[in-house]
Amino acid sequence: MTEDRYTPRPEDKFSFGIWTVGWQGVDVFGPGTRPPMPAERAVRKLAEIGAYGVNFHDNDVFPFEATPAERDERIAAFRKALDETGLVVTTATTNLFGHPIFKDGAFTSNDRDVRRFALRKVMDNIDLAAELGAKVYVCWGGREGAESGAAKDVRTALDRYKEAFDVLGSYVLDKGYDIRFAIEPKPNEPRGDILLPTVGHALAFIEELEHSELFGLNPEIGHEEMAGLNYAHGLAQALWHGKLFHIDLNGQNGPRYDQDLRFGAGNARGAFWVVDLIDNSDYDGPIHFDFKPPRTEDDEGVWESAKGCMRNWLILREKVRAFRADPEVQEALRAARVDELAVPTLAEGEDWRSVRDFTPDIDALAARGAAFERLDQLALEHLYGVR
Amino acid sequence: MTEDRYTPRPEDKFSFGIWTVGWQGVDVFGPGTRPPMPAERAVRKLAEIGAYGVNFHDNDVFPFEATPAERDERIAAFRKALDETGLVVTTATTNLFGHPIFKDGAFTSNDRDVRRFALRKVMDNIDLAAELGAKVYVCWGGREGAESGAAKDVRTALDRYKEAFDVLGSYVLDKGYDIRFAIEPKPNEPRGDILLPTVGHALAFIEELEHSELFGLNPEIGHEEMAGLNYAHGLAQALWHGKLFHIDLNGQNGPRYDQDLRFGAGNARGAFWVVDLIDNSDYDGPIHFDFKPPRTEDDEGVWESAKGCMRNWLILREKVRAFRADPEVQEALRAARVDELAVPTLAEGEDWRSVRDFTPDIDALAARGAAFERLDQLALEHLYGVR
Amino acid sequence: MTEDRYTPRPEDKFSFGIWTVGWQGVDVFGPGTRPPMPAERAVRKLAEIGAYGVNFHDNDVFPFEATPAERDERIAAFRKALDETGLVVTTATTNLFGHPIFKDGAFTSNDRDVRRFALRKVMDNIDLAAELGAKVYVCWGGREGAESGAAKDVRTALDRYKEAFDVLGSYVLDKGYDIRFAIEPKPNEPRGDILLPTVGHALAFIEELEHSELFGLNPEIGHEEMAGLNYAHGLAQALWHGKLFHIDLNGQNGPRYDQDLRFGAGNARGAFWVVDLIDNSDYDGPIHFDFKPPRTEDDEGVWESAKGCMRNWLILREKVRAFRADPEVQEALRAARVDELAVPTLAEGEDWRSVRDFTPDIDALAARGAAFERLDQLALEHLYGVR
Amino acid sequence: MTEDRYTPRPEDKFSFGIWTVGWQGVDVFGPGTRPPMPAERAVRKLAEIGAYGVNFHDNDVFPFEATPAERDERIAAFRKALDETGLVVTTATTNLFGHPIFKDGAFTSNDRDVRRFALRKVMDNIDLAAELGAKVYVCWGGREGAESGAAKDVRTALDRYKEAFDVLGSYVLDKGYDIRFAIEPKPNEPRGDILLPTVGHALAFIEELEHSELFGLNPEIGHEEMAGLNYAHGLAQALWHGKLFHIDLNGQNGPRYDQDLRFGAGNARGAFWVVDLIDNSDYDGPIHFDFKPPRTEDDEGVWESAKGCMRNWLILREKVRAFRADPEVQEALRAARVDELAVPTLAEGEDWRSVRDFTPDIDALAARGAAFERLDQLALEHLYGVR
Repeated sequence: MTEDRYTPRPEDKFSFGIWTVGWQGVDVFGPGTRPPMPAERAVRKLAEIGAYGVNFHDNDVFPFEATPAERDERIAAFRKALDETGLVVTTATTNLFGHPIFKDGAFTSNDRDVRRFALRKVMDNIDLAAELGAKVYVCWGGREGAESGAAKDVRTALDRYKEAFDVLGSYVLDKGYDIRFAIEPKPNEPRGDILLPTVGHALAFIEELEHSELFGLNPEIGHEEMAGLNYAHGLAQALWHGKLFHIDLNGQNGPRYDQDLRFGAGNARGAFWVVDLIDNSDYDGPIHFDFKPPRTEDDEGVWESAKGCMRNWLILREKVRAFRADPEVQEALRAARVDELAVPTLAEGEDWRSVRDFTPDIDALAARGAAFERLDQLALEHLYGVR
Repeated sequence: MTEDRYTPRPEDKFSFGIWTVGWQGVDVFGPGTRPPMPAERAVRKLAEIGAYGVNFHDNDVFPFEATPAERDERIAAFRKALDETGLVVTTATTNLFGHPIFKDGAFTSNDRDVRRFALRKVMDNIDLAAELGAKVYVCWGGREGAESGAAKDVRTALDRYKEAFDVLGSYVLDKGYDIRFAIEPKPNEPRGDILLPTVGHALAFIEELEHSELFGLNPEIGHEEMAGLNYAHGLAQALWHGKLFHIDLNGQNGPRYDQDLRFGAGNARGAFWVVDLIDNSDYDGPIHFDFKPPRTEDDEGVWESAKGCMRNWLILREKVRAFRADPEVQEALRAARVDELAVPTLAEGEDWRSVRDFTPDIDALAARGAAFERLDQLALEHLYGVR
Repeated sequence: MTEDRYTPRPEDKFSFGIWTVGWQGVDVFGPGTRPPMPAERAVRKLAEIGAYGVNFHDNDVFPFEATPAERDERIAAFRKALDETGLVVTTATTNLFGHPIFKDGAFTSNDRDVRRFALRKVMDNIDLAAELGAKVYVCWGGREGAESGAAKDVRTALDRYKEAFDVLGSYVLDKGYDIRFAIEPKPNEPRGDILLPTVGHALAFIEELEHSELFGLNPEIGHEEMAGLNYAHGLAQALWHGKLFHIDLNGQNGPRYDQDLRFGAGNARGAFWVVDLIDNSDYDGPIHFDFKPPRTEDDEGVWESAKGCMRNWLILREKVRAFRADPEVQEALRAARVDELAVPTLAEGEDWRSVRDFTPDIDALAARGAAFERLDQLALEHLYGVR
Repeated sequence: MTEDRYTPRPEDKFSFGIWTVGWQGVDVFGPGTRPPMPAERAVRKLAEIGAYGVNFHDNDVFPFEATPAERDERIAAFRKALDETGLVVTTATTNLFGHPIFKDGAFTSNDRDVRRFALRKVMDNIDLAAELGAKVYVCWGGREGAESGAAKDVRTALDRYKEAFDVLGSYVLDKGYDIRFAIEPKPNEPRGDILLPTVGHALAFIEELEHSELFGLNPEIGHEEMAGLNYAHGLAQALWHGKLFHIDLNGQNGPRYDQDLRFGAGNARGAFWVVDLIDNSDYDGPIHFDFKPPRTEDDEGVWESAKGCMRNWLILREKVRAFRADPEVQEALRAARVDELAVPTLAEGEDWRSVRDFTPDIDALAARGAAFERLDQLALEHLYGVR
């Protein structure tokens, strides 16, 4: 039965941001089209459709202006829903971009008081995250950036960015929390140019942190594709550095505004290679969806789109496994010498001297085709489901 | 006199790739429109228009198929021109993308023999580079990449990429050459997706190399802007990591094919901030132009465009210095609290405890404008030359 | 005096949308950072800084939900400010994208009642526009589009789009209003793909309308540049068709979210050519700015950015006139044979037979350079203000 | 049997450009990797793999420099292969972009002699096209454009462009040829900005031609997607204007260099909607592929990629038919009110007065979801082949 194969199970570890299904549809050109959704409703409905876990911003659960009593009340409702449904808080994060005080960023705001307050706001929510059992703390630098050249001294801003993460690393260590941080890059929107715009920039930055072992990445499909980059390649490099701590799955149609389509929509071929890569890696974090149900949809559409995310992952997982198991594919991979890339260029014991005068049969190599088209066509036919 | 102010002088350290002025105009849609230019002619003409140095690929000087005797003859002619003109070889590099054997890349070709030969080809030219006094060896991974998902296992390819640079690092160290490597990122073209697509990806990669101290970056304006990224931000992050070893200046109009316009053409405001950044940094390498005189131009147009590159740098340098010296700008920078970003978020002796309960005057911060528009307008008026 | 040269005068015909300076800063990631600005305040402040006219959406003046009495009161206040300041209502338009009922568009909503109501909302505001003396009625198809393939039958949607404009054309004719419509194309955002995505698509569409003489274009810099298109080229084609009815000036940095930067920011070279084109055309409508003061700015920053728009136009106008008057430029234009393009390919009295066997001196033509680089460098130096 | 279903048949009307499979792999960064392929070999091999027709540039068959005798010999060989294989010449076109004389374009070159010669070159090949039975003559304005602002007066260039097509229209009419022209838009590459950059610009332009009934469009997937535009939407608008004369199918990954991947590669979801649209339209021209087998491939890879193009069309055609036939899809289309869009906004006999005071139930409309996500998920599952 089709239904059985594509029904989410807890071991699939599907998780959603509370803010995804809870997005009301506010954009630059109009107010929301859907009523507010309390976090506890999101939890219960997500459980119902088969999710395993959730991720939340502090202000997904309680408003910025909440009094301590209101905050407690909202957290209690959230926690109750978690307890009743068994949903896991896999991840947490801080809203450092909504409130007007963060209009010039948080950790890299020119305003020092904003930076100090941002640290405090994060620590507040790390405590809650730890309490709720989150193992990953996502940091998206929503408004850390600039629209104009003189407004932000990037080198100084990176100093402050590092300072913030050094402080937060110490905090987590001092508190003894079992939490690691996952930085989420994005090239632009809502700022003209955002700091740490791609997977690469964030990977490099992490190396400079005091507690760099605590820091990894949370790459998002749409964010890399907004820069025209290959998301699977970015994930692969993050894995290569041992730094893939979390993933944000959604859909995007190339360089334009941040579409946050459901996973599977947008770049369908790209999605195939993402699932192939993750399924063949040691990544074992949640399969997390960070999307926005289009503003056209009502509540029913919200859940259709959420279900679609998980279903598309399961469909694609089945396909990539069939692809890798297909003997014709295996032969095509050999014909394309994909296996030969795994053979080190220098053999055991060789050094540069071994190739200092190396001369292959140039004409033969020049004439040899790479046989990539046949391989790619096989992959496409697996995507199509016609093999 | 205008002429005097914008006449290139040796201390400006302007350099050009031999392949830039020598580009014949071959593209996917047509053959060259200009005759071949021997390297020695490029050298003499560049000297004439005021350049200080040159960069060269091995096959800019002698063809891939050259016999040893032909190679020697071509190198002798090149060297003679260098000696006679006093032009400095600041930089060298290898053509690992033209010949058909490199159709699937060089260091990451699926074909091991190609990888081995690529190493040898680079070592050959490093010897020549050292002989000619080059201090920087540029590595652009022209065809290290893929058009399709299964053809290249990115993690394995990064292993091979690292292996190549580890071998080359050893080579330079063993030979005692005073040469450092500068990796040049590019997102795509001529391959669908190129490995190390941006400044960030290359910075991160370098950290994994055995002799990482020998490796830095050679960011190119057009390559970053093809991904919609802010080039000055990329340079700033490279400087922040201490890894800006070289720069490639040209012009581009956003995500599209690699235009390689002369410096100043394309993103004029971006160019202003590039000069401002470099002029206020400790970068002291060559001011290098990697552009292509449009295929519409004849020999005269080639030199007009080359002269334009240098002239535009000098014009912009004058402007950015006037901008920084302008008291109204300095006041606007203060009003935008750009100086406040240089104040650490935590004071001397503070740690996370110092801000654990920090509460600023939220309403006041929320209401406070960032004053960036006034500052940016002043910068624009300096670009326009109306202040 | 610099100040004098760049001070806006009524004959410059600068106009602004009420919604531009009135934008509170709401975006997908956060609420507004500035208080609401009643239309009458916008009018008075715009008059103060030297604007000549304004453009307004119905709901810039009164809210969607306004009772008739509230509507009258808001319009009266608006009109009073207009009367007192002498500001002209050059243009008007309808908000067909904010309210949730327009979530799937207005004239092309799948929902017929929405389409009918949209017509009525436009007619309501056309009456007001006529009363206030507007000569141009702008139609931006904010949400006329789709995120997914099956949701919108494009051919049918174009039928409905045409139907709406045919109805509105009749309305204006029947009422005897002296009003023409200006369609404003945009490729995407807030919808995944918007109908009539570029200047070209809208020009073609207009030809199919019943009262096509009443319809022209309102091209916006940012909207064309989001598609990587050359805005000045788009304007030129609109002029060529006799269809440039209005212009929307702002700034953008290539394919990404709709930035709506102030005019002059973004693509500085592009702005030079826009002013050059308009200044050398028979366009005599308002010089209209449709931008958004960045969310970082307070009220003072709002007016700085608005002033910058006008000032940059005046600065560039001075430059393009100097460029066209420069004898060296005129010589370079001749060298580039720009004048020769104005000579018809066939002489008076010739037809295809005259060139049926035409054979030029191929080698001479092939060798001849186009001399574009020198010309472009001169233009750039006029932009820089160093000539 | 899978093989049977996806085996090309003559009635599928698949055609290829001779230059596609014949591309040797020359690009800006390297020479060809494959030997030249005479047109007759392309014809025979295309016949072998199941193609129905071909399209050719004059210089695909004989070189620019061919003497009359050489030209005749090459044409004879081409014609012999056509005769022997039964392949139809569906389409022809002129190479007006390769030879250096066309470096500034052909019909809009600043050089009048180039323009006159271009007309002659086209007429020469129209004669051949007519002789060979082509019904469509494609015009891609390869280098009609500019890299810089002053070099090309766009309005004047459009005058020349129109002049050229008016002359060619007369030629075809005077000769009594049964040939129509299909203009192929492209935004950029090999020129910085190309005239008639999108489907829309070309549609509008055609309206101004003297013999506009002879002119239509040849939209290419990659060319529209390089501007981030939705190709199926562009096709739909061309159909709506009755101007879809030909289609160029291939694959592209968004704004970047012109990739010319095989059809099906690149934007897989976009391809689904293209086939759906064409299959539900009255377009009955050839299903034409204009792609480039990647430079990595040898001759075998060339044919694999060509076969893939046809196979992917057939696979997708099967899918879109299943999609449209699926009762659940039909229900979802109704739920999304896609049928309601086909109901005119005004009923028979209504005019603007009928909706002048129309007030729907605003709250009900605002609350109603558009149900697009469910519909799109069904489409995606048809693409995946899991329904």
